[in-house]
Amino acid sequence: MTVSREIRLKSRPVGVPVHSDFELASVELAAPGPGEVQVKNLWMSVDPYMRGRMYDRPSYVPPFELGKALQGGAIGEVVASNDPDFAVGDIVNSMFGWREAFNISPSAMAAAGPMGALTKIDTHGLPPQAFLGVLGMPGMTAYAGLLRVAALKDGDVVFVSAAAGAVGSVVCQIAKLKGHTVIGSAGGPEKVAFLKSIGVDHVIDYKATPDVVAELAKVAPKGIDVYFENVGGVHLEAAINSARPFARMALCGMISQYNETGKPTGPANIILAVGKSLRLEGFIVSNHYDLYPAFARDMAEWIKAGKITWKETVEDGVENAPEAFIKLFAGENMGKMLVKLA
Amino acid sequence: MTVSREIRLKSRPVGVPVHSDFELASVELAAPGPGEVQVKNLWMSVDPYMRGRMYDRPSYVPPFELGKALQGGAIGEVVASNDPDFAVGDIVNSMFGWREAFNISPSAMAAAGPMGALTKIDTHGLPPQAFLGVLGMPGMTAYAGLLRVAALKDGDVVFVSAAAGAVGSVVCQIAKLKGHTVIGSAGGPEKVAFLKSIGVDHVIDYKATPDVVAELAKVAPKGIDVYFENVGGVHLEAAINSARPFARMALCGMISQYNETGKPTGPANIILAVGKSLRLEGFIVSNHYDLYPAFARDMAEWIKAGKITWKETVEDGVENAPEAFIKLFAGENMGKMLVKLA
Repeated sequence: MTVSREIRLKSRPVGVPVHSDFELASVELAAPGPGEVQVKNLWMSVDPYMRGRMYDRPSYVPPFELGKALQGGAIGEVVASNDPDFAVGDIVNSMFGWREAFNISPSAMAAAGPMGALTKIDTHGLPPQAFLGVLGMPGMTAYAGLLRVAALKDGDVVFVSAAAGAVGSVVCQIAKLKGHTVIGSAGGPEKVAFLKSIGVDHVIDYKATPDVVAELAKVAPKGIDVYFENVGGVHLEAAINSARPFARMALCGMISQYNETGKPTGPANIILAVGKSLRLEGFIVSNHYDLYPAFARDMAEWIKAGKITWKETVEDGVENAPEAFIKLFAGENMGKMLVKLA
Repeated sequence: MTVSREIRLKSRPVGVPVHSDFELASVELAAPGPGEVQVKNLWMSVDPYMRGRMYDRPSYVPPFELGKALQGGAIGEVVASNDPDFAVGDIVNSMFGWREAFNISPSAMAAAGPMGALTKIDTHGLPPQAFLGVLGMPGMTAYAGLLRVAALKDGDVVFVSAAAGAVGSVVCQIAKLKGHTVIGSAGGPEKVAFLKSIGVDHVIDYKATPDVVAELAKVAPKGIDVYFENVGGVHLEAAINSARPFARMALCGMISQYNETGKPTGPANIILAVGKSLRLEGFIVSNHYDLYPAFARDMAEWIKAGKITWKETVEDGVENAPEAFIKLFAGENMGKMLVKLA
C-alpha cells in the first residue's frame, strides 16, 4: 500500500488564487491491477493556463472539479508494472500532476488521445524536468506559436511579452537563433539580466516603465512584425501600436487578465488592425501536435548546439504546489515554475 | 473654359464631421493639354474610410490636405480628349471625386498604379453608379473580405454588422447565395425590412436592442464561424462572445470608432480569442485587387441571375457632398451613399 498526497481544488478562486482555495489530501493506492502501472511522480508543472480550468465555464478543456485532485503535466518513474510496454524505472510523462503517485492503465488511457496518454521518455541524458519545460508543452507552444501561428519570416522584428517565462524565453531564443531582432518584456532586474544573457536585443522592464506603449515605440522605431502575446492589456496595445503593416500576433495567453474580477480592458487601439492589415490569432498547443516530431528534432539539436538554454524556479513537495501556482501570477518565476515531488 | 465646383477640406474634424469642416470652391479648367482628357463627373462616392484620411497621421493612404479638394471614387464621362485611348462619351472610373470635372493625363496617372488610374468602364447596360457600389470598391471589399480574409467555408454561420450598408449588404447576399445562415445587424425598421427582403435569416436591430451581445447569442445559439466587422465596439464583443472555435473575423472597418475623441473601448473579451483559436484579421481592399477579375465575373453573373440586388441613397449636387458624408455616421444611408453630380 502506497500513500499519495495530492492537491484538490477546494473552492473556485475569485481573483488571484489564495491558499484556502486548495487542500492537501492523502489517498491510499493499492498495488496496480491487471494492465495497470504505478507511477511515482518526480516533478510536476504549474502553468498559467490552469487558472482558466478553475472557472466553472465551458472551454477547450473541462473545468477542474471541486473536491478532486487537480491535473497537469508531470514527469514520473514507473515503480510497478502489469503492462508489458512499461518497465520499472521507465521515465514517463503524464497529465497526472498535483499528486505524488498514481495507478493507471496505459492502454485504456491511450484511447483518450495523446493528451491523456502515459508516454515513455528517453531523456538523452537531459534532466527529466526539462520535458515539462523547454522540451515539453511550453517549448512546443513557443515553437508552434512563433513558427506556424505567427508565421515568422526573414527580417521580422519580434516582440515577446512575459519573455522570461517558460514559453517566452523559448520564443526569444528561437527567434534569436534564426537571426531576428527580438524585443522582450519582463518585470524586474533579474529577468532583464537573464534576457540580455540569452541575446535579447532590447528588454522592457514593464515594472519600471511608466508607459509600455511609448517604450516599445522607442526601442522598435521601425515597428514590429511579430508579437507573441502572453500578457494582454497594455502589452497588446503596445504591440498593435508598434505593428508594421501585415504584422502577425500569436495570442498564446493573457496572464494579466486571468484573475480579473471586473470587466477587463480590451485593446483600445484595435481599429489600427484594419488599416495595418494586422492578424491576431489565438491558439492552443494541442491543436498543433502534428509539429511535435519537427519540434523534438529541432529542439534537441538546438540544445546540443548550446543555442537554447533555460531557467527553472523550483518549489519542493506537493504541499507547496499551490504556492508555486500562486507565484506565477505575481511573476515570481524565472523560466519554468516546477514542483519537485521526489 | 469650364468651371468645376469642388469640396475642399477646410479644417480637420474633431469628432463627428460638421459642415464647417468643408468648403465649396470653384476652379476654372482650361481645355485639356497634350495627352490629357477632360472628365465631367456624373456620380461620386462618399465612404466611411474617408474619415480616416481627414486625420493628420500616417496611414495606408496619405491624409487629405487642408485647403485642397478631397478625393474619392467617381464615375464620369469623357467630354474632351487628347489621348487616343479615350473617346468623348467614354464612361470612366477615377479617384477624382468631390468635384464636378477635371483634366488628367491618363498615361501619367497609370504610372501611379491601379488606384490612381483612369479606367474605362463597359457598363453592360447597368447604371454607371453601380460601379461605385456593388460592382466597385464596396462590392470588391465584400467579396475579398468574406471569401479570402474570412475564408468562408461550407456550413459557416456568418454575422455581418452594418449589414444594410454598401459593403455589408453585399456580404450578406454572397453568403446567402452560397447557402449560409446569415445574421445581420442594422439600425431601424427600414433596414431590418431590407435585410429580410434579401434573405438574411436573423436581423438584429441594434438601435432597438439593449444588449447586442445577448441578442446575438440568442439568434445564433450554436455560435458563429465568420464575422464581417464594419462597426467595432459592442458588435466586436458580441462576435467574440458568440464565436465558435476557429472562427474568422474579417476586420473591414469600425465606423463606431471613427469619430471617437476620447479613448475608445476595446473588446473586453479579447482573451476568448486564445481558448477558441479565433483569428481576427484586418484588411484593405487595395491589397486584394488580384481577385478583381474573379470578382467582376462572379458579380456580373450573380446580378444577371437576380441573386444580388442593391439600394442607393442619393444626394444631389457637389454642394451636398459634405451632407452625404456626414449622414454616413448617423447611419442615414440605406445601401450605397452617392452624390449625383450631373
